Amino acid sequence: MGSADVPAPVIRRLPLYLRALMFLVDEGQEIISSEELGKKLGISPAQIRKDLSYFGEFGKQGTGYEIKHLREQLKRILKVDRGWGIALVGAGDLGHAIVHYEGFKNRGFHIAAIFDNDPQKIGKKIGDLEIRDSRLLPKVVKEMGLQVAIVAVPASEARKVVDTLIALEIKAILNYAPITLSVPAGVQIRCIDPVTRLQYMTYYL
Amino acid sequence: MGSADVPAPVIRRLPLYLRALMFLVDEGQEIISSEELGKKLGISPAQIRKDLSYFGEFGKQGTGYEIKHLREQLKRILKVDRGWGIALVGAGDLGHAIVHYEGFKNRGFHIAAIFDNDPQKIGKKIGDLEIRDSRLLPKVVKEMGLQVAIVAVPASEARKVVDTLIALEIKAILNYAPITLSVPAGVQIRCIDPVTRLQYMTYYL
Repeated sequence: MGSADVPAPVIRRLPLYLRALMFLVDEGQEIISSEELGKKLGISPAQIRKDLSYFGEFGKQGTGYEIKHLREQLKRILKVDRGWGIALVGAGDLGHAIVHYEGFKNRGFHIAAIFDNDPQKIGKKIGDLEIRDSRLLPKVVKEMGLQVAIVAVPASEARKVVDTLIALEIKAILNYAPITLSVPAGVQIRCIDPVTRLQYMTYYL
Repeated sequence: MGSADVPAPVIRRLPLYLRALMFLVDEGQEIISSEELGKKLGISPAQIRKDLSYFGEFGKQGTGYEIKHLREQLKRILKVDRGWGIALVGAGDLGHAIVHYEGFKNRGFHIAAIFDNDPQKIGKKIGDLEIRDSRLLPKVVKEMGLQVAIVAVPASEARKVVDTLIALEIKAILNYAPITLSVPAGVQIRCIDPVTRLQYMTYYL
């Protein structure tokens, strides 16, 4: 089934299923029912079964899902059964935090190169990676064949950085700056906005 | 209408509407149709109208929504027409990035106190705020009447910190650590997980 046929909200839930399954594997569990998975995620079992049915038959009636098998299938569907190199733009506090983020492990991504335009930062290292001059973005993105980027620069610079990344044919951009962005068809952009999450929670207070 | 009556996905979209409206006010726009708003957000106009109809009649047939009015109503509904003080736990790179995050402005939240358990950090300042000893959490949370917290500590410490916050009757927790958490009824928890966002995008590559 082609990408365009599955509703976006379904695709948004698949990474949540995958994350839960990976924790379950770590805990040594082998089988899970849609009821149990739903309870863990706050998603109805019917929704989970319907979401997964877009991609095939993964569960057995009455026994549930074989966790490792479903995990591998979800990795394949989300195309994270490979290693995506990420171009990280911005080597400030946030850039450092992203490089040190423990949640990348075994989930299909790694920071491949870090860029900043601050001469004080260029040449220094975060972990094993040297901070490179932002002017080298085109060269490095091309040489490494990068298709994914993370934008961790101040709001005032984010739009210019995103435009540069799009011009370099980066196809997936995760943006941490608090600005709205529209991008051309064929480019995916998602924003990390902690305030929308906080506002969701205060509704219930 | 009570909190429990509105589906969670509706509540999750309200902060997106509010954010878009705030940008539009900044740009000087006064009226917007559900069609135009939908286009900006990638949400269908029918969905927007249905979501808002849970809370009243905000648009006029044929003219659209008065932006400032709808913004104020959404602020009221999400309870961000006031200022929520946040207890930030973790004063590493990520804690620094959160304190300096430009997206908090005028959106109902401010960092009220910062905590860390590292003697090297305690007593130092981030912006105007002094980093306090985590052992002071109970005292400060009580004195300041804080109900919202952000957890920006390593994964290995996050569970303990969350348990502490729950014991202090914090009701809304935004967690940046890559761990799964279950919390008692009456406590809201949301996690910032950049990898789920990345995995959503690679599906389309």
